[in-house]
Amino acid sequence: MTLLALAVGGRGVVDPDEPVVFADDEGFLRGRAAFETTRVYGGRPFRLDRHLERLAGSAARLGLPAPDLGALERLALEAVAAAGERECSLRIYFTPGREGNGRPGALALVQALPPWLDELRERGLRLAALPFGVETPSLIGGAKASSYALNMAAVDEAKRRGADDALFLGPDGVVLEGPTSNLWWRRGGTLFTPALDLGILPGVTRATLIELAPELGYAVEDGAYRLADVAAADEVFTSSSVREVMPVVEVDGAAVPRGAAADELQAALRAAADGA
Amino acid sequence: MTLLALAVGGRGVVDPDEPVVFADDEGFLRGRAAFETTRVYGGRPFRLDRHLERLAGSAARLGLPAPDLGALERLALEAVAAAGERECSLRIYFTPGREGNGRPGALALVQALPPWLDELRERGLRLAALPFGVETPSLIGGAKASSYALNMAAVDEAKRRGADDALFLGPDGVVLEGPTSNLWWRRGGTLFTPALDLGILPGVTRATLIELAPELGYAVEDGAYRLADVAAADEVFTSSSVREVMPVVEVDGAAVPRGAAADELQAALRAAADGA
Repeated sequence: MTLLALAVGGRGVVDPDEPVVFADDEGFLRGRAAFETTRVYGGRPFRLDRHLERLAGSAARLGLPAPDLGALERLALEAVAAAGERECSLRIYFTPGREGNGRPGALALVQALPPWLDELRERGLRLAALPFGVETPSLIGGAKASSYALNMAAVDEAKRRGADDALFLGPDGVVLEGPTSNLWWRRGGTLFTPALDLGILPGVTRATLIELAPELGYAVEDGAYRLADVAAADEVFTSSSVREVMPVVEVDGAAVPRGAAADELQAALRAAADGA
Repeated sequence: MTLLALAVGGRGVVDPDEPVVFADDEGFLRGRAAFETTRVYGGRPFRLDRHLERLAGSAARLGLPAPDLGALERLALEAVAAAGERECSLRIYFTPGREGNGRPGALALVQALPPWLDELRERGLRLAALPFGVETPSLIGGAKASSYALNMAAVDEAKRRGADDALFLGPDGVVLEGPTSNLWWRRGGTLFTPALDLGILPGVTRATLIELAPELGYAVEDGAYRLADVAAADEVFTSSSVREVMPVVEVDGAAVPRGAAADELQAALRAAADGA
């Protein structure tokens, strides 16, 4: 849908063809913005107050500061006034702002209505039922998409529980992955990690560790495991590109032992990187 | 993490403090960009080829065109060269581009490493286990976050099945909502819609219809229902801000009857909007 008008918090109405979002805005990087969409009838956004209330609730759930709803309302009305179209749609985005900076941003977008709306209402919708949590994850399972709001909320929840990071379990209790890492543990000379066919992200560091492990004398097994397998391990660690190999000292408040494999793999990863 | 350098497809290296993303880029609006993060060691991104291969796979799963991996590699290396930091992290984003335009965009971001990484590795991670699909949806359940990659993939899957839109079912077969709408159906004089405590989005149009229905002589019940309830309805429709009240003519390829309530509610919604 064509962007008819655009207003930016602190700046007001700007040219819709001007890029206004920073590349490192968490709304873009992590899909962590709260948003609202409403229909504009005769130049007036429908139930804007309710949309703004819901936006405040979304912001709270996403861990963003409380938005100034009066300022957002003014911004939205400025954008609608600038659009020169009385029947259109309005979107309001409230973003966490640039990573590490933390100053939230607001955007109001006014867009043309899809031209096929009336025709579709006349004909009626055809729906396909998709079991959520069964079929749907496989739709983008293993795709690294910038829809990380849930992942980031999981990290926040882990922190509320006194941990550093979350560990996702499948509906059936199967151990999956961290929000931004793969999980590993060792028993004796064997390293274990959840299998990719569980729909987890195929980590490049994970693949690298699988290559490096035999040179260090470790066997690697992947499969579907339970939290009890992790709790009984001789050591536990995560792998990811920036955190690299990170030892785990606690799972759900229970201490897990530290071991040598995490350090050995970290050193081997660095050596591989130096020779890359 | 500080943004040390930024390169944009078609432009090359730009000032990191210049906003480069359009407000209506689907990567921002819908969280539909594919991305990669890798560690840069001694000025060289680790296993960049593997990250780019995975990016191509993510793009395919998200319904984006195939990226030019050679161009992305050059863009990434330009950004790293511009960063003036040999130990850092590199992020590559491949976005669908502006809504309705469809010309994909590429970004390479080079960021400083988190200063606490070594300290954390020394101390070790504390993890909290979160059952995915049980506890995790409630973390942002009902929050309208711009992490819509899964929702958009569900619409694509519905289209592949010959439908217009998807209908999400819970793991237990409970009818939830559409990717961008709430669901309704009528039996006799009663309108049914899934309850908000299922973790669905509290639609403003849904709330408006609940207010308007009694004036039209309809009772409203919300709760946990099955697809069989929908299939046995006298009529079915969806509600959302821009599509408004949209009749449904088919669920999973089976015709559902059309009725008067959808049109009556649509007219009442318009009247409420005119008087808003």
